[in-house]
Amino acid sequence: MVPRYARPQMVAIWQDLNRYRIWFEIEALAAEAMAATGDVPAEAARAIREKGGARIAAMTEADVERIAEIERETRHDVIAFLTWLAEGIGPDSRFVHLGMTSSDVLDTCLAVQLTQASDLLLEGIDAVMAALKRRAIEHKLTPTIGRSHGIHAEPTSFGLKLAGHYAEFARNRARLLAAREEIATCAISGAVGTFAHLDPAIEAHVAQKLGLRPEPVSTQVIPRDRHAAFFAALGVIASGIERLATEVRHLQRSEVREAEEFFHPGQKGSSAMPHKRNPVLSENLTGLARIVRGYVVPAMENVALWHERDISHSSVERVIGPDATITLDFALHRLAGMIEKLTVYPERMAENIESLGGVVHSGEVLLLLARAGISREDAYRIIQRNAMATWTALGKPDFRRFRDHLLADPDVAGRISPEAIDAAMDPRLHLARVDSILDRVFGSH
Amino acid sequence: MVPRYARPQMVAIWQDLNRYRIWFEIEALAAEAMAATGDVPAEAARAIREKGGARIAAMTEADVERIAEIERETRHDVIAFLTWLAEGIGPDSRFVHLGMTSSDVLDTCLAVQLTQASDLLLEGIDAVMAALKRRAIEHKLTPTIGRSHGIHAEPTSFGLKLAGHYAEFARNRARLLAAREEIATCAISGAVGTFAHLDPAIEAHVAQKLGLRPEPVSTQVIPRDRHAAFFAALGVIASGIERLATEVRHLQRSEVREAEEFFHPGQKGSSAMPHKRNPVLSENLTGLARIVRGYVVPAMENVALWHERDISHSSVERVIGPDATITLDFALHRLAGMIEKLTVYPERMAENIESLGGVVHSGEVLLLLARAGISREDAYRIIQRNAMATWTALGKPDFRRFRDHLLADPDVAGRISPEAIDAAMDPRLHLARVDSILDRVFGSH
Amino acid sequence: MVPRYARPQMVAIWQDLNRYRIWFEIEALAAEAMAATGDVPAEAARAIREKGGARIAAMTEADVERIAEIERETRHDVIAFLTWLAEGIGPDSRFVHLGMTSSDVLDTCLAVQLTQASDLLLEGIDAVMAALKRRAIEHKLTPTIGRSHGIHAEPTSFGLKLAGHYAEFARNRARLLAAREEIATCAISGAVGTFAHLDPAIEAHVAQKLGLRPEPVSTQVIPRDRHAAFFAALGVIASGIERLATEVRHLQRSEVREAEEFFHPGQKGSSAMPHKRNPVLSENLTGLARIVRGYVVPAMENVALWHERDISHSSVERVIGPDATITLDFALHRLAGMIEKLTVYPERMAENIESLGGVVHSGEVLLLLARAGISREDAYRIIQRNAMATWTALGKPDFRRFRDHLLADPDVAGRISPEAIDAAMDPRLHLARVDSILDRVFGSH
Amino acid sequence: MVPRYARPQMVAIWQDLNRYRIWFEIEALAAEAMAATGDVPAEAARAIREKGGARIAAMTEADVERIAEIERETRHDVIAFLTWLAEGIGPDSRFVHLGMTSSDVLDTCLAVQLTQASDLLLEGIDAVMAALKRRAIEHKLTPTIGRSHGIHAEPTSFGLKLAGHYAEFARNRARLLAAREEIATCAISGAVGTFAHLDPAIEAHVAQKLGLRPEPVSTQVIPRDRHAAFFAALGVIASGIERLATEVRHLQRSEVREAEEFFHPGQKGSSAMPHKRNPVLSENLTGLARIVRGYVVPAMENVALWHERDISHSSVERVIGPDATITLDFALHRLAGMIEKLTVYPERMAENIESLGGVVHSGEVLLLLARAGISREDAYRIIQRNAMATWTALGKPDFRRFRDHLLADPDVAGRISPEAIDAAMDPRLHLARVDSILDRVFGSH
Repeated sequence: MVPRYARPQMVAIWQDLNRYRIWFEIEALAAEAMAATGDVPAEAARAIREKGGARIAAMTEADVERIAEIERETRHDVIAFLTWLAEGIGPDSRFVHLGMTSSDVLDTCLAVQLTQASDLLLEGIDAVMAALKRRAIEHKLTPTIGRSHGIHAEPTSFGLKLAGHYAEFARNRARLLAAREEIATCAISGAVGTFAHLDPAIEAHVAQKLGLRPEPVSTQVIPRDRHAAFFAALGVIASGIERLATEVRHLQRSEVREAEEFFHPGQKGSSAMPHKRNPVLSENLTGLARIVRGYVVPAMENVALWHERDISHSSVERVIGPDATITLDFALHRLAGMIEKLTVYPERMAENIESLGGVVHSGEVLLLLARAGISREDAYRIIQRNAMATWTALGKPDFRRFRDHLLADPDVAGRISPEAIDAAMDPRLHLARVDSILDRVFGSH
Repeated sequence: MVPRYARPQMVAIWQDLNRYRIWFEIEALAAEAMAATGDVPAEAARAIREKGGARIAAMTEADVERIAEIERETRHDVIAFLTWLAEGIGPDSRFVHLGMTSSDVLDTCLAVQLTQASDLLLEGIDAVMAALKRRAIEHKLTPTIGRSHGIHAEPTSFGLKLAGHYAEFARNRARLLAAREEIATCAISGAVGTFAHLDPAIEAHVAQKLGLRPEPVSTQVIPRDRHAAFFAALGVIASGIERLATEVRHLQRSEVREAEEFFHPGQKGSSAMPHKRNPVLSENLTGLARIVRGYVVPAMENVALWHERDISHSSVERVIGPDATITLDFALHRLAGMIEKLTVYPERMAENIESLGGVVHSGEVLLLLARAGISREDAYRIIQRNAMATWTALGKPDFRRFRDHLLADPDVAGRISPEAIDAAMDPRLHLARVDSILDRVFGSH
Repeated sequence: MVPRYARPQMVAIWQDLNRYRIWFEIEALAAEAMAATGDVPAEAARAIREKGGARIAAMTEADVERIAEIERETRHDVIAFLTWLAEGIGPDSRFVHLGMTSSDVLDTCLAVQLTQASDLLLEGIDAVMAALKRRAIEHKLTPTIGRSHGIHAEPTSFGLKLAGHYAEFARNRARLLAAREEIATCAISGAVGTFAHLDPAIEAHVAQKLGLRPEPVSTQVIPRDRHAAFFAALGVIASGIERLATEVRHLQRSEVREAEEFFHPGQKGSSAMPHKRNPVLSENLTGLARIVRGYVVPAMENVALWHERDISHSSVERVIGPDATITLDFALHRLAGMIEKLTVYPERMAENIESLGGVVHSGEVLLLLARAGISREDAYRIIQRNAMATWTALGKPDFRRFRDHLLADPDVAGRISPEAIDAAMDPRLHLARVDSILDRVFGSH
Repeated sequence: MVPRYARPQMVAIWQDLNRYRIWFEIEALAAEAMAATGDVPAEAARAIREKGGARIAAMTEADVERIAEIERETRHDVIAFLTWLAEGIGPDSRFVHLGMTSSDVLDTCLAVQLTQASDLLLEGIDAVMAALKRRAIEHKLTPTIGRSHGIHAEPTSFGLKLAGHYAEFARNRARLLAAREEIATCAISGAVGTFAHLDPAIEAHVAQKLGLRPEPVSTQVIPRDRHAAFFAALGVIASGIERLATEVRHLQRSEVREAEEFFHPGQKGSSAMPHKRNPVLSENLTGLARIVRGYVVPAMENVALWHERDISHSSVERVIGPDATITLDFALHRLAGMIEKLTVYPERMAENIESLGGVVHSGEVLLLLARAGISREDAYRIIQRNAMATWTALGKPDFRRFRDHLLADPDVAGRISPEAIDAAMDPRLHLARVDSILDRVFGSH
């Protein structure tokens, strides 16, 4: 975790204190359920809740260090915590964790942390979607050139661009919800998942109180395909951030200048070149996407644990659990702010549409010729030669616009009127259905 | 695609012939929809369907080569196909592909191919699940040792092991259905997705006829986050195959010998060592899982196309589209057959449970001591020392079973009766709830 | 392997015929060495070489099918081959493969194939380097704007850009040579590498004849860290291809137009838009880089085989061995041709340098102010405000060039003469050391 | 960075303090070189060295926070540092960083940090190699069964196993040295690498003083193929750690018990099962390997920066620079300690060799039959049927050893004497050449 790419809310989820609180809650809930099933005395369950709860409530960094100290001897984190907890509970502590195995606590805790993290990530996605929607509607009729292969294609609207990203983030939201669902399970099933020493009612109780579902078959651990699917979803979301960031980087480049990240008063772009205003946020987001994506394959490698479990997944998750969620959370909020404050230059967009002399209207002219009865192959050839003549003279003295080339070409002029060509070259043609596309995405807006 | 890891049904989906058939179907459906909207003459749509359909129906390898030849000149695959098709349709061919862009055809076709592939993959998962269910129920009460960290933990049942994998494949089935849903969309929206030259009714018609949904916002292409999510799901499924394959590899190893891949008459395990019977299928599946997983990150890198699209995704998909689905399809069927025919050795499982002198029952004895009023820490220490005494003498003259060590330990003997210890060491204890766990997975079975 | 991304020379390396030839050569060389050590009769070795050699020389597709048929029974590829070979050799065939294990043949063969593949890849890199060198020297003094963050920075030369890529490919060449060295080892060490049944002199002989080194410790297999390092090197090279391809994609984009992939007569860029000329080669290369990179992690996952070996690496290598080398080979040759024929537009480069009103010279002006005794912070502030005034008025009626803004600023005008400013804005300033940088890369050129 | 997987020496390399010290050193060296070239006054260079040096020497956390505060305004880390530094130097600070660009400092600093990290990693590899060598020689004649596919193959020695890993780490050492060489370059070349404002002598001086080489062509940044190659090497090394860790995990599993991680007094293996001694170190190493491998592809994605540079690599490197080196460093030292203290059980190894009734000697018997004039196919069939008869009766009342089956088989008995069979089954046969193999690895030892 790199502090500069972290928001405190998400960091807190992964701190020792939150983890110990969740561990305690699981133990206390399990003890209460065991009291209900008659496995532990009711007073013991009460003592665990009360004395243990007090100890947790008063927990300080010194306690965290004390637990670490016990762990250095036992080399076992859960036993270290239970030993510390027992110091606060007294003799009834022998009813804590009864018949349970460490993973019952660890994996259920991880499920809680990942659901907490998911909820923050959902907020981040919502912020991105809100920004995208607002700007999309604002610019729904702002004409801009559409580009394929980095080459001007046909006009579109800037709002439509943003609406496409909104639709992607709506899908990402659904993926994250599904991913949250994947990992929101609880296992209190004992050493190898047979419930040999544990009534399944205990698991059901803990799950219900923590907002989780019981894991159908746990084998000491909750199966890691769930976590693999979770981190894969984060990788897809990160890739969507990269797509939008890449768009902004392109729009801001010096030759395009159609949009620009907000440049703060006092901000400096380069130590050597005072004129620079760089799209550093979107470049940063591009890098953050790579990081999150890099965690996907390790998460998948974690699936094939040996037999009922091995602990190789643990070190991976200690890294990628916090790092993937913290990085993605930061990225989503950075992205939302960037879109919210993005400076948009509609005049420059308009200029760029026309900057190739009108060849961007070749598709509509192709249809005109087709409707005039010319075969696809002939029509294509005629238009291509006129477009190339326009294109190759850009910026040269003999430059003429595409329209003029067409009108001077006997294969065209005899068949199509100047008025028809002008109509074909009206950029508004391309905006006619933008509203109905936006309806698909936003509903009536 | 490596022929030895390919089933013909899946290969056929990716062959030129299937692709061209789908391309034609898209063009014919689009023309029919355009006839309905009045954009092309009804007779033209009919001619396209009939003459084009005849040409496609009669397509041979020579035609495929003819299209390749045209592509070598035009350097454009869809134009090459349309030119070939036009040779069969005649003048009405100018109404083919009217106002459409190549990606309308290519991306919608890919969606059809991926849904076809998904349907085959679902069959593969179903075969795996059927085999797992049958064997799980067959062995639901076959005791076997559960292992964590490769170390004997507590007994479980072999059927419960398999039920856990069944539950994972049930999740994988749901993931694949969701992934199929992701990519089952259609785009007939023109050069940059504005429907400038195309009525959205055309897209709706084509989508409906092909079993797809219209893509809400396409930008020349269907957005690649969908495909990233699709291939990520395949990676998760492949990882589940690896988990089960790893289990079989472990069970077959010479020291374990609890299960074995079917060894065919005439099969040879090693050119140098005639005694060998190797788990080659499950090792092969392990490798195939790596391959499928390797396609996940490239699919995610495909998301951030430039502006309305660049074509960098195309070469990636030409490789991973076929290879990921063909490999996974083969792996699923190989896995299903392997589980179906797996030789299981219950006697050896029973032997292994007892092979550590009974220490695998330490958990239940721990509970006995706890119930007898000893603190967790003390009870742990007492049992650990007796277990270690048993363990370290394994295979030595002074070996005594865990039970005997316990009974000889005054800290135990004074508190717990031999009968209680024997009851704690009854393996049936661990099978008591297997049936109810299987109910969670299979329903009543 | 996708035929459209494959050159026949590289494909041939991976075909059955080449593999069987190498297998035979290994067996024949081993038999000859065994004759020398007295392990097999000299006549037998001669018979193997001659009769076996004749059988191999006459090998047809029917033989390949015959071997496949035997393999379907034995489920072992090397045994199937040896059985087919024995049919041609007769009784002396019992001296073939004596004391060897299949991996002795398979792994040594893979080493030969990978060295053959490396040699072709080196040719590809050489072709790329030759093209880059020629174009770099051609354009060594062609001024063009340097860009960081996609924003104009300071002028540089187009040749210097290309020289940087040349230097990267020179490093890639060295990496490939090192990678070739990594995998060029031979193992003829028997079942688990103890040479129990084989004199090490046999391995030494085979290695020497095949241009390989003996593997110091083989364990049935040649250790897979070698192959992991090999495929990692291919991933780095592929990433270098992507960097150069990305540069070309940027240079060709409609707003930049500084260079363009060669557009063939008859070529069509888009089925819908006849004006399009797209950088499809460099986009394709971008995708191919993703594919090659996707093979790196599977190759690394192949390292941790179980004990002396498991066969999980095999399926991975059957895919990535051919696919990574074929794809990279194709990409290198495509790249070389693309650079060789790249159309370069120096006039447009010159235009772009000046298109931001001269702010790209802000760095040199900063130095002027610093030399004039102004603190870095103050100088930065002065220049930044003048650059921003220039920048934000681009394309507007009140636009004035950076030079004019500076001269109108009392903080500047009082300290620096117009002549000094003009000198600071001379693009030639940035080309002064290009030649000496090129010397670093090309030597005197 | 997860503290539990980090050694302080490596962490220190990546802390702010070390980074600022290196930044200062670069600036001071550059100023001194500029004094020599006459670009800055000699007194200024001296003031920078002395006053700046004093400020750096006295740097505290408060200074780090002060720099962070300036960065929050300027949004530029190097400018923030220079501003803080200027506060200590006074007016001469205008000669700091003169004509340089931030990347000159950042990239050269990263090179220094990565060489420092490499040196620590080399120590880690040396520790692993020392442990492996000692234990390999200790156990060079300890017989143990070799296994392929997890199935007993032929005997080998435990020392030979370890020698194979030693040889791999020797290769890893060479790879790390090459990787260190890759990234040990320096760039002081200005905004886009043209040396427009900087004499190359400055770069040469800084490089030489820092133990680096000048980067032949830098483009504001040092090209990232170098870093990709560096992190790829770390991924290969991590995979080698995983291979050795996997071996230990297998050897410790309950059915094998041939070796065991050292179990500390007071250590607890499981909260629920006091009998457990788990190979937690090697499982942990397996997970750490996944983490390091996960950084390889992001590093490769960093190569294709846009034009002369974009800053997307930066966030990736802020994560993987520290995390990959810290994790690998920790893993190497953990591995070295684990091998150093590994408990080895030669008696159990001897037991396991014989546990399959002698079938592990089938290869040598195959050679006997071949030498006796039987064809490979017939000999194979004869031996396979006797081996299977042995194998399938393991643990059953009718079990007979392989030797006895062979002697009772008329196809064998008529041709081979019992003495010859016994000789073929002598495990010492497999140790005969171990010493000479170890010579290949260790030289005379």
